[in-house]
Amino acid sequence: MHEKLAELRARLMEIDDLSSAGALLNWDQSTYMPPGGAAARGRQMATLGKLGHEKATDPAIGQLLDELGPYEASLPPDHDDAALVRVARRGYERLTKVPAELIAELYAHGAASYHAWTQARPANDVATMLPYLEKTLELSRRIADCFPGYTHIADPLIDFADYGMRAETVRVLFAELRAELAPLAQTITAQPPADDACLHQYYPEAAQLAFGEQIIRRFGYDFTRGRQDKTHHPFATKFSVGDVRITTRVKEHDLSEALFSTLHESGHAMYEQGVSAAYEGTPLAGGTSAGVHESQSRLWENLVGRSRPFWQHYYPQLQAAFPDQLGAVPLDTFYRAINKVQHSLIRTDADEVTYNLHVMLRFDLELAMLEGSLAVKDLAEAWNVRYSEDLGISAPTYSDGVLQDVHWFGGLIGGSFQGYTLGNILSAQLFETARKAEPAIDSELAQGEFGALHGWLREQIYSPGSKYTASELVERVTGGPLTIVPYLAYLRGKYGELYAL
Amino acid sequence: MHEKLAELRARLMEIDDLSSAGALLNWDQSTYMPPGGAAARGRQMATLGKLGHEKATDPAIGQLLDELGPYEASLPPDHDDAALVRVARRGYERLTKVPAELIAELYAHGAASYHAWTQARPANDVATMLPYLEKTLELSRRIADCFPGYTHIADPLIDFADYGMRAETVRVLFAELRAELAPLAQTITAQPPADDACLHQYYPEAAQLAFGEQIIRRFGYDFTRGRQDKTHHPFATKFSVGDVRITTRVKEHDLSEALFSTLHESGHAMYEQGVSAAYEGTPLAGGTSAGVHESQSRLWENLVGRSRPFWQHYYPQLQAAFPDQLGAVPLDTFYRAINKVQHSLIRTDADEVTYNLHVMLRFDLELAMLEGSLAVKDLAEAWNVRYSEDLGISAPTYSDGVLQDVHWFGGLIGGSFQGYTLGNILSAQLFETARKAEPAIDSELAQGEFGALHGWLREQIYSPGSKYTASELVERVTGGPLTIVPYLAYLRGKYGELYAL
Repeated sequence: MHEKLAELRARLMEIDDLSSAGALLNWDQSTYMPPGGAAARGRQMATLGKLGHEKATDPAIGQLLDELGPYEASLPPDHDDAALVRVARRGYERLTKVPAELIAELYAHGAASYHAWTQARPANDVATMLPYLEKTLELSRRIADCFPGYTHIADPLIDFADYGMRAETVRVLFAELRAELAPLAQTITAQPPADDACLHQYYPEAAQLAFGEQIIRRFGYDFTRGRQDKTHHPFATKFSVGDVRITTRVKEHDLSEALFSTLHESGHAMYEQGVSAAYEGTPLAGGTSAGVHESQSRLWENLVGRSRPFWQHYYPQLQAAFPDQLGAVPLDTFYRAINKVQHSLIRTDADEVTYNLHVMLRFDLELAMLEGSLAVKDLAEAWNVRYSEDLGISAPTYSDGVLQDVHWFGGLIGGSFQGYTLGNILSAQLFETARKAEPAIDSELAQGEFGALHGWLREQIYSPGSKYTASELVERVTGGPLTIVPYLAYLRGKYGELYAL
Repeated sequence: MHEKLAELRARLMEIDDLSSAGALLNWDQSTYMPPGGAAARGRQMATLGKLGHEKATDPAIGQLLDELGPYEASLPPDHDDAALVRVARRGYERLTKVPAELIAELYAHGAASYHAWTQARPANDVATMLPYLEKTLELSRRIADCFPGYTHIADPLIDFADYGMRAETVRVLFAELRAELAPLAQTITAQPPADDACLHQYYPEAAQLAFGEQIIRRFGYDFTRGRQDKTHHPFATKFSVGDVRITTRVKEHDLSEALFSTLHESGHAMYEQGVSAAYEGTPLAGGTSAGVHESQSRLWENLVGRSRPFWQHYYPQLQAAFPDQLGAVPLDTFYRAINKVQHSLIRTDADEVTYNLHVMLRFDLELAMLEGSLAVKDLAEAWNVRYSEDLGISAPTYSDGVLQDVHWFGGLIGGSFQGYTLGNILSAQLFETARKAEPAIDSELAQGEFGALHGWLREQIYSPGSKYTASELVERVTGGPLTIVPYLAYLRGKYGELYAL
């Protein structure tokens, strides 16, 4: 049996090597590649993807998994070998249930649609994108139909990112959250807006980068096993447990851009850096779901990085780094500026209070399209209606409306948005659990130290990798299911104090 | 037949994609990879190499090549399709004649030997390396023996780098060259050494890099299809015809280090950038031999970049970039400094006159080991004897003696050195031909312009890629075979003037 397991591991490692190589090609494309490299790079990434897919769907893997079934059944479910076989089988079944031709069609269409979108968005040209969206919707449904037995057609698509989550569960959770958040946002935005002019002075790039890197080094991001580079759209990426990189984007007239993107991506990266090294090269060696991953980025970005105790410690250092810009700006002004709540049009720029309203309406529109209750041709209108209802504004252009996010225009309709809000909800639930378990977290945070928090997260969340599903992990760590209660309490506490509600 | 050709092209492209991906992993390892990434990176590169080798030795390629034989025979030899089939067959036969197990043994031993060498060299520990060398020699012989029918056992190994070259031809050529160069070097080094103190002042890194990049942009290196980054051991590397990068190494107390490495690598890179785009992804899309490649790097580094007319134009700009360091240094002092001839221990630091003496003795020692006339245990002593004979010095340590170059310790014994000197010889032969064909080259050079030279090289040398073998190319371009005459004339002219010989 050990031979079978060793053979499985060797095959999984080879697949992982191909996928890590592909990730490096993508990182390079987003950071250093000269423009002339673009055409060949796309082809090279496609070749690696195709070979990896061939290897990952090799029937020999299915046979090994079958042969390892009795061994798996003989072990407790949280034994590493049992988890490896279980998670590998989940991946294998997911990949083999979708015909290779359909995958190829999806990739080819996704690339064409993405390319069209890069031109249609700046041109405010929604009409061009409608036929692409129709095709994306059709492909998304066909993919979902490869997994018969679902309750909701979005369930298999949600499974890709947040395994085990069901459309109906998420819809109910989000409806509860929206019922609380929409009025909260309304109340806050009825007040005069916070003054964030202090953030919009000239901040030289090098000093911005140095400050952010100093912070995440304190967080526990390990620069001997990672690095930060500049890109257009920040992301974290992993080539091995010893090489997990982040990227950021600097605006010299917006201090918050690079800083909070760095803190955010460091949360994703610390998760991957913290996975048990024993899982290297296996499907256990990575974050367990989009939602849990996002909980880690948002925890460090928002619950730590936009908190008052954090800045009580670090603001004097920030002032020292930028004396001309911030020397005369009081802490409270700065704190209010980085937590300014407003009804804005762009999801990625939204504050903590309104962010989820952006996400949840996208989730609902996805479900409606998949169900067939919303036609693609009516999407833009439905988008504007929901923005008016939920955020009290509507976009003057499609570019800042329905065309703003890449997700529907480069991949699937379904499954791509819920993780953002699940992550926010979970960030507060996990942070609350951590602070109860480790009282040192609060006192350290006030000193600009994060050892207790990082240590707790590493042990509880990071190290198991994908051994547990998101809901198993939440249950194990918090003793209960996912709940919006801590998140609402967090927002009400923080913004109640800020806006004297 | 077009279908067969298209299938061959598709298979070659896939192999090229894997090899380009491997090259990017290597580039990243040498430039930006954090230390923690090393272990997995080695494995990932090995996986890509193994898959590429599997694809490249697929019997289906052999069958396609057989089926395309009649078509190839129906075409003139310099038809692109004929060249493609011919060069692809050469590569396929080379790869398939060596058993996969032997390749694997060679790689595994090479990695172990390289690792041992990285520790043995600083420790001056030649004894540890002897058993590794014995094994490398045995493996090199076994590889050579996969190609029966050779005249000299080194011939197949030389073929890998400089296809068509024979050990005996090279030995004769090198003996002639040594007979001229050794006394020339002796005569020059009997004079007082040039004063190169001006190069060893403090030169800030950023300004050094900027100056070098400005020069190679003038040469014709296309930064929209390339870039320069820092590394430990400079190299050029190609990911596609649209993405050919160089790396350099900066020493802030040695102006010549980064500058001439940048010029050198730009020569390699312009060659690859200039290959016909129609050859992309095929075995035609690259320099045709190690020797021709080196001729291009040395032409730009030395025949252009260390020439008096070049610096007559650019020295005022260099002075303007470094006024404190060079403002008071006359051009002639600087010119003598960058062309200082000395009997030194380290090949890679050697000047134009002595460099080939370093190379040629290594070549002879390789042959002697392969022939069995020199035992590995006697190599270090033989090394010192040759250094005394040829350069009049001997290394006080093995680190700066027999252990100094990686070649024997990470790969093969045989075939790895001759290209350096073949390149030097050829650089002068080609430069002479170019100047005769394009009289504008000299007048442009004096103006800091290189369009005529770059254009001639692109048309004559770069664009054919590997369509012609090195000797075919030399014959086509110069109208005769490789000859040391122009190279000796160049050295005698330049150094005769410098040292008033």
